[in-house]
Amino acid sequence: MHKPTPISGFPEWLPAQRLEEQRFLDTIRQVYELYGYTSLETSAVERVEVLQAKGEVDKEIYGLGRLRGQTNRWELALHFDLTVPLARYVAQNYGDLTFPFKRYQIQKVWRGERPQEGRFREFYQADVDVIAEERLPLHFDAEMPALIHDLFQRLGIRALLRLNNRKVLKGYYEGLGLAEERVPEVLREVDKLEKIGPDAVRRTLEESGLDSTLASRCLELSTLKGTGPDVIRRARALGVRHPVLEEGLEELAFVATELSHLPADQVIFDLGIVRGLDYYTGTIYETTLPEHPGLGSICSGGRYENLASEFINRKLPGVGISIGLSRLLAHLFGSGTLASTRQTPTEVLVLWPSAELRQACRDIAGRLREAGVPTEIFHEPLALKKQIRYADRKGIPYVLFPYHWTPEEDLVEIKQLASGEQEELPLGTWCARRRPSA
Amino acid sequence: MHKPTPISGFPEWLPAQRLEEQRFLDTIRQVYELYGYTSLETSAVERVEVLQAKGEVDKEIYGLGRLRGQTNRWELALHFDLTVPLARYVAQNYGDLTFPFKRYQIQKVWRGERPQEGRFREFYQADVDVIAEERLPLHFDAEMPALIHDLFQRLGIRALLRLNNRKVLKGYYEGLGLAEERVPEVLREVDKLEKIGPDAVRRTLEESGLDSTLASRCLELSTLKGTGPDVIRRARALGVRHPVLEEGLEELAFVATELSHLPADQVIFDLGIVRGLDYYTGTIYETTLPEHPGLGSICSGGRYENLASEFINRKLPGVGISIGLSRLLAHLFGSGTLASTRQTPTEVLVLWPSAELRQACRDIAGRLREAGVPTEIFHEPLALKKQIRYADRKGIPYVLFPYHWTPEEDLVEIKQLASGEQEELPLGTWCARRRPSA
Repeated sequence: MHKPTPISGFPEWLPAQRLEEQRFLDTIRQVYELYGYTSLETSAVERVEVLQAKGEVDKEIYGLGRLRGQTNRWELALHFDLTVPLARYVAQNYGDLTFPFKRYQIQKVWRGERPQEGRFREFYQADVDVIAEERLPLHFDAEMPALIHDLFQRLGIRALLRLNNRKVLKGYYEGLGLAEERVPEVLREVDKLEKIGPDAVRRTLEESGLDSTLASRCLELSTLKGTGPDVIRRARALGVRHPVLEEGLEELAFVATELSHLPADQVIFDLGIVRGLDYYTGTIYETTLPEHPGLGSICSGGRYENLASEFINRKLPGVGISIGLSRLLAHLFGSGTLASTRQTPTEVLVLWPSAELRQACRDIAGRLREAGVPTEIFHEPLALKKQIRYADRKGIPYVLFPYHWTPEEDLVEIKQLASGEQEELPLGTWCARRRPSA
Repeated sequence: MHKPTPISGFPEWLPAQRLEEQRFLDTIRQVYELYGYTSLETSAVERVEVLQAKGEVDKEIYGLGRLRGQTNRWELALHFDLTVPLARYVAQNYGDLTFPFKRYQIQKVWRGERPQEGRFREFYQADVDVIAEERLPLHFDAEMPALIHDLFQRLGIRALLRLNNRKVLKGYYEGLGLAEERVPEVLREVDKLEKIGPDAVRRTLEESGLDSTLASRCLELSTLKGTGPDVIRRARALGVRHPVLEEGLEELAFVATELSHLPADQVIFDLGIVRGLDYYTGTIYETTLPEHPGLGSICSGGRYENLASEFINRKLPGVGISIGLSRLLAHLFGSGTLASTRQTPTEVLVLWPSAELRQACRDIAGRLREAGVPTEIFHEPLALKKQIRYADRKGIPYVLFPYHWTPEEDLVEIKQLASGEQEELPLGTWCARRRPSA
């Protein structure tokens, strides 16, 4: 017998933290559903060939094998994100889905990376995507930021969502005379702007063969941020002309119009954001928390040309966003931003003063549960002080004294532990007055 | 490029089925919380030594390894149930938990067994347990069936919960003169009663060395079923005396009194149920659906002496129940008992008749979402017939015509697609009248 120790990279929460995690999960789900996205859950296990279809790095994948005997041919493995499973699922169930297919997916994913600060090997992702056939209207590019803004409002977290469009970047660089095949390399460098600063990026660009004027002009675009109309005007003023740039700016303008009702200091058009993946081809998103600058983007995504070309011979463009929930929560717990003493959903502890009141306790608890109030009856007729201490330690907000209750006379005494306020009133009145999770 | 095929034993649902699964998951969670159980989620991955601490069969465990290179020393593996993780979690976090610790846990588990009818390799379990220190009051043995009865009522499924007590079985056999060490073997045979019938069980018992009178008397107890008081009276009338039998009957009587408010044809005392595992030491439960006789028990559990003796030097008795959710759902889908055409949580599709109404559509959708109504705006100003067909195919119950809406005059036309009923009314009135998921 030995006390087990945690496994590095596999976070687990205590009950009070788990209640907060549930609040986040519930709110994310609620908002995704309010915008008409339907839940999808794919199996945690995929064929290795499916996971490798996009040529992802093997070393991050956890293969599955039987405990007995050696394994060197892996057939099954744990998914490392929710995008590959979505692509596989859509291809597999293509005929049964109605397009545009609006789905959300909130699941654990696994990555066999070396554990380090803020990196987990098992964590929650909360993805939302819409997939169309052939052509996906731009309205959806605007729906994503609206939804994410709504979500963080409801979570009570100040978030900064930043938008850009890959066509703007690509078209601008090509308009400057850069060969198309050199664009990815420049993007990769510009992506480091926030981390290493403009001077270091300019230096690397010059080392890679761009003359210093060109390198500077590449960086000029990336400094533009503000409202949509303002940023678009300033981008045009840089004097570069290219059809792809123009297309990107028009798309940005469309999205800006659709989002004009959102606060301009929380939804920002920022031509400096890049999103590493080549996968994205149009609008891209990043979300940071101004009060937690070290955290990085906790919610990113964008538009892609073709979800599932590896699995089905159909063009399926989409746009989506993914929230790195576990990383966000771990940070909020670690920084003390989220702290709760409540260890249980129980709202009312029915005290059990003496054996003969057991029936009354049971009836009262039944009434409360019918009214949707999570309720416990204390499990032994101990001294009331001990029973109340249990409520206190678990963070149960109310205790109920059943002394005068009868089915006819509905009277109970209820005490709110935090304030010490105690009142005698009909149980029905208390239930009607109560708000959930008071 | 090739179309991926399903992996045998790893079930996945289509959107309409997933909505039903969510309804089940939500109802289970709701009822668990109404009785004061708090959510726990442990990592899917455990150390192999933890999973093997109770000496479980290796071949069911999925080990995890890196894709590159061979693996023959497994350190990590996927959990195959939620009991071992609970034991490990409680031992690990002992100092941070308040006892009795009432927790529920709804998670996927994995078993590397050969896939066959009704057996999955990845499936949902929904466990609820209460763990105490040293001594766990019997009230909790009665809380479990009350909770499960409440749950199936809310799910609208007729369920039959059957109770027994392992002490009754053990004490009765020992009272008959059977040596203690022979009891497990007899229990194992009696457990087959429903499957192979009393004659076959009697024959095996005789073959194992019991004389025919003793074998018959062993079986006599197992035929008793009915209300608590009735079954207890008839058990006593069998004339066997043993202190463990008496203790078991008293426990059953206590539980029967606590459950006297439940319908006697849905909560049945049945001395024929055994529960295979030696783990259980007192009250045991099984739940079947009378309308689905082939399904077997979909919700079983019982009381155990000591949750975590492998991991911590404390006596932690508990009682709990586990629902095999995926197996239940697969059966209900397969038998056509659960069938839904709704593919989305969206309740209202705001139609978008022409470009200039876009702003009105957006405002209306915002109002609906604020009122908690899952809402989509159709994504293109196509012919209304096409827009309505989209709602029809996704099973969206209402479509909304925004023609006459202005922020001042709140008028909209709403049509219920199933009935064809259409009415013009203020949006606020409709929202106030609506019930969730109408």
